[in-house]
Amino acid sequence: MMVHGTTEHQHLRYNPLRDTWVLVSAHRMKRPWAGQVEKAPEEHIPRHDPRNPLCPGNTRANGEVNPDYDSTFLFENDFPALQPDAPDPGSDQHPLFQSKAARGVCKVMCFHPWSDVTLPLMKRQEVVKVIDKWAELVEELGSTYPWVQIFENKGAMMGCSNPHPHCQVWASSFLPNEPALSDRCQRAYHQKHGEPLLLQYAKQEAEKKERVVVETSDWLAVVPYWATWPYQTLLLPRRHVLRINDLTTEEREGLADIMKRLLTKYDNLFETSFPYSMGWHGAPTGPHLTEDNSHWQLHAHYYPPLLRSATVKKFMVGYEMLAQDQRDLTPEQVNIVKCTVPSFVQYRVTH
Amino acid sequence: MMVHGTTEHQHLRYNPLRDTWVLVSAHRMKRPWAGQVEKAPEEHIPRHDPRNPLCPGNTRANGEVNPDYDSTFLFENDFPALQPDAPDPGSDQHPLFQSKAARGVCKVMCFHPWSDVTLPLMKRQEVVKVIDKWAELVEELGSTYPWVQIFENKGAMMGCSNPHPHCQVWASSFLPNEPALSDRCQRAYHQKHGEPLLLQYAKQEAEKKERVVVETSDWLAVVPYWATWPYQTLLLPRRHVLRINDLTTEEREGLADIMKRLLTKYDNLFETSFPYSMGWHGAPTGPHLTEDNSHWQLHAHYYPPLLRSATVKKFMVGYEMLAQDQRDLTPEQVNIVKCTVPSFVQYRVTH
Ligand SMILES: O=P(O)(O)O[C@H]1O[C@H](CO)[C@@H](O)[C@H](O)[C@H]1O
Ligand SMILES: O=P(O)(O)O[C@H]1O[C@H](CO)[C@@H](O)[C@H](O)[C@H]1O
Repeated sequence: MMVHGTTEHQHLRYNPLRDTWVLVSAHRMKRPWAGQVEKAPEEHIPRHDPRNPLCPGNTRANGEVNPDYDSTFLFENDFPALQPDAPDPGSDQHPLFQSKAARGVCKVMCFHPWSDVTLPLMKRQEVVKVIDKWAELVEELGSTYPWVQIFENKGAMMGCSNPHPHCQVWASSFLPNEPALSDRCQRAYHQKHGEPLLLQYAKQEAEKKERVVVETSDWLAVVPYWATWPYQTLLLPRRHVLRINDLTTEEREGLADIMKRLLTKYDNLFETSFPYSMGWHGAPTGPHLTEDNSHWQLHAHYYPPLLRSATVKKFMVGYEMLAQDQRDLTPEQVNIVKCTVPSFVQYRVTH
Repeated sequence: MMVHGTTEHQHLRYNPLRDTWVLVSAHRMKRPWAGQVEKAPEEHIPRHDPRNPLCPGNTRANGEVNPDYDSTFLFENDFPALQPDAPDPGSDQHPLFQSKAARGVCKVMCFHPWSDVTLPLMKRQEVVKVIDKWAELVEELGSTYPWVQIFENKGAMMGCSNPHPHCQVWASSFLPNEPALSDRCQRAYHQKHGEPLLLQYAKQEAEKKERVVVETSDWLAVVPYWATWPYQTLLLPRRHVLRINDLTTEEREGLADIMKRLLTKYDNLFETSFPYSMGWHGAPTGPHLTEDNSHWQLHAHYYPPLLRSATVKKFMVGYEMLAQDQRDLTPEQVNIVKCTVPSFVQYRVTH
C-alpha cells in the first residue's frame, strides 16, 4: 500500500531486478520546456522503396539480393558488432587493464515485407510469425550461446536508421552485464522468498491494478513500480515460463494480441508512431541450459524515450549518468495506465 | 600490454569503477549512417538576451530578479527534483514495492555573465572562480548531505535547455547508485591491492601514453581503457585528493588550465561547441566525513554523445539498454588522443 503523501513528493523506489534505486520527483512535469525538440517521425513511408536495403528484392550493402519474402525475413547484420571468430586477448593482465574474448553473431529480422507497417498495424497472425521466429532463434542460437538478445530499436530517436519494421538478434559467447545482474537479483530473491521474483510481482500488480496497462488471461503489461523511463513497461506471462521458446501456441497468440494492444496504446498516447527500444530477457542458454534456472521468468522491457509529446523526450543525462536515474512523474501518474482511449482506436488506419 | 590483434577485433574490457564490461567492436565505424542527424548547436548566441532567465538582471520563472552579477552566480533551481522537506514513505513494505525518503537541494550555477562563452573560451582566472565555487559548495552542502553531485549538461543534445554557460549541483540525503557502486569498487580494490584504484590507474596511463589526451604536472586527462562513449574522458589529479575542496590554489589553477585544454580539443575535434554531460565524483560527505575514505580519488567524468561528426551521435539504445554497453571504435583509435591540432587553436575566437 502506498503510504499517504508519497506520490506527491519526491522519493526513492527500489528496482529489485537491478538492485538500484530511482529518484521519483512527482511534479517536475510542471517545469517549462525550452530545450531540444525532436523531429516527428516520417509520416509517409512508401510501402516499397527501391533504395531501402530491407525491402524484398532489393540489394544490400554487401551486394546480396533479398528474396521476394512475404512474411518475416532473417539475414546476417552487414556490420556486426559480434562475429563468430575473434582472437582471445590472453589472460594474465593487470587488474585495471582486463580484456576478454567476445564472440557471437548479429542478425536482423524484418517483420513484414511492407515498410509502412509496424507491429500494432500488422495482423495478429503476422505478429505470431514474428514471435515464432524469435522462439526459433532462441532455440537455435541458444543451443550454444549463453545469451541471445532479441531487441527492437524503433524510430529515428532510438538510433534506428531504417523505417522498415525490423528487430535485431545478437547472440554472444558471454552473459552481458544487464542479464547477469538480473540473473543475480532473481536468484537471490528466489532463494530468500521461495518464489520467482517476477511471478510474485505479476500477481501483486494484477491485484493492485494501479499500474496495469493491459491484461489478458495469459499476459500482463504494467508500468513497473520502479520504472525509470516515463512510459516504461514490463510485459510478462502469468504462467511460470523461462524462455520465449517455451511459450505454447495459445500463449504466442495471446502475446501477439497483447503486444498489438500495448503498442496501440503507445501510438495513441501522443498520436505518433511511438519510438522505443524493447527486448526480451529469459533464462540464459548454452551452458546454462543444464543449470537450475527456476528463478527466472520470461519478460520484455519497453523503454520509450518520450516525456511530454511526440517531439519532447526525457533526457537521461548529467544527474542520471553520474548519480542516479530520475523521473519527473510517478508511475501511477502515467496516463497510459488510466487511458480511456479504446485500445484499438489506432492513430492511423490499418491495412 | 595490448596483446597483438585485440584492437582489430571485438573484445570485452572491464570497467573497474563500475564492475561491468563494455563490448568493444573495433570496426563498426565503417558502417554507413542513414539514421538521425542532430541539429548543429546554435552559432549566434547573443551575449545578453533580455528573455534568457540566466542572464544578469533578468527575471526568472518564479519572479525573482537576477543580480547584475559579473562572475559566477548561484541560485536555487526553480523546478527542483529534490527539496529539503519530503515525508518518509514509512518502512515495513513488501520487498517488491520498496520506497525510501529522498531529501536534498538543487542549485544552478552560472559560470559567467555572458551567454556566448563556454569554459574553454573563458579566461583561466574566470574558470578558477568556477572551481572555487564548486569547492565551496561541496564544503557547505557536504557538511550535512552524504552526496553533492556537481554536473554540467552542455548542449541541446544533452537535454540542456539554456545556452548560457552553467552547471547544476544536486545534494541528496542518500548516496546515489553510481557513487555507491564506485565507492564499493574503489574500496574493494584498495583492500586487495593496497593502493587507491585511480592513483594506480593514473600512474599506469601516464607511463603507457596510449590514451592520454592532456597531461600537466598535477593533472591527467585520458580516454579510459574501459570508455563506453566514443570520446569519453576521465580527468583526475596525480596527487591523492579525496574531494574537490581539498585542492590547493595551485591545483585549482592547474585544473582550470587542463579543463580549458581538454575542452578546446573537444571543440576542435568536430569544429563545434562539443556537447557533453560531465560531473565530479569525490569521497562521500556528511556522515561519511568521519569515515576512512582513503580508497577514494577525486575525478571528473566527461560523457560526450558524438560519434562521427558534430551532428551524428552514438545511440545507446537496444543492445546497450538491455544487454551491455557497446562501442564502435577502440579507445586507442580515438583521435583526440593523437590529435595534432595545437591545443589552443579554438574553433572560434575567444574574447
Ligand atoms: O534540470 P534540467 O536542465 O531542466 O534538465 C536536464 O537535466 C536533468 C538532470 O540530469 C535531467 O533529469 C533532465 O531530463 C534534463 O532535461
Ligand atoms: O545496429 P544499428 O541499428 O545500426 O545501430 C543501433 O543499434 C545498436 C544496438 O543497440 C547501437 O549500438 C547503435 O548505436 C544504434 O545506432
